[in-house]
Amino acid sequence: MEKQIFSIWVKNKLGVLSEVASVFGDAEINIQSLAVGVSEDEDISRITIVSDGDEESVAVLTAKINGMPNIVRMEKIINENSVLRELAMIRVNAPESKRQNIMAIAEIFRAQVVDVGLRSMTLELSGAKVKIQAMEDLLKPFGIQEVVRTGIIAIERGARG
Amino acid sequence: MEKQIFSIWVKNKLGVLSEVASVFGDAEINIQSLAVGVSEDEDISRITIVSDGDEESVAVLTAKINGMPNIVRMEKIINENSVLRELAMIRVNAPESKRQNIMAIAEIFRAQVVDVGLRSMTLELSGAKVKIQAMEDLLKPFGIQEVVRTGIIAIERGARG
Repeated sequence: MEKQIFSIWVKNKLGVLSEVASVFGDAEINIQSLAVGVSEDEDISRITIVSDGDEESVAVLTAKINGMPNIVRMEKIINENSVLRELAMIRVNAPESKRQNIMAIAEIFRAQVVDVGLRSMTLELSGAKVKIQAMEDLLKPFGIQEVVRTGIIAIERGARG
Repeated sequence: MEKQIFSIWVKNKLGVLSEVASVFGDAEINIQSLAVGVSEDEDISRITIVSDGDEESVAVLTAKINGMPNIVRMEKIINENSVLRELAMIRVNAPESKRQNIMAIAEIFRAQVVDVGLRSMTLELSGAKVKIQAMEDLLKPFGIQEVVRTGIIAIERGARG
């Protein structure tokens, strides 16, 4: 099924996030990832949603959300015009004898080591989804303890012409 | 008001995200940020929520969510035991004469330049909330066009003893 990415600017009002999410649920469109943070205006939050859904049902959903009271606007992201990024932290088994190997992998991906425990290391990586997946795959043989990811955020590229 | 951070592991089922968000709404507890991504188990998503709320109402809400059908578990994050990170992309006005100044700011914060347009640059930065805010403040005089942020994700540190 096609993957769709949306930016939705919303007023910072109680319940607006669940209102938006429930429109997707009512339309039976699965949300693959969702990230919300402050926008350039502190009274406005910006939601980035990656979802399934064919073009027709997505158009209906967009019209519905754009008509809701606390929504500033909803836009479909065109991949080619946008930068897409995600942040992940991965904690992996790391007895002393394995730390060098794990640090070598971190270096390849330009990941940051954000924590070292007695038997674990935690790496932080931002990038495209495939890059994060690639590092996770290389870390798997060591034994992954925990993964936390933000979901994708997207921003339009500046005009070239 | 106190700030609370939660990790919630949920089954990848339609509507589970809006169910979780609406419990916060019903309890009149404001969600400051929310990030959802895949966990170490591809059938389980991990939600990180930063919210307001006093201890009592948060305890009620946690019990309610832990009792819901598609919830694996919900845990409160203890800041001192955890690494907190957020990802941001900021597109800023950047005529050619200003690019060097903006790149100097990027270097200070170890931000990545992810796009350069004819009259804009886009920087990507991960870190603690205050670090992102500090860079945004320094970029403000150039004219910020757009900000997108993931909201905070959190992971427990490895055991020290």
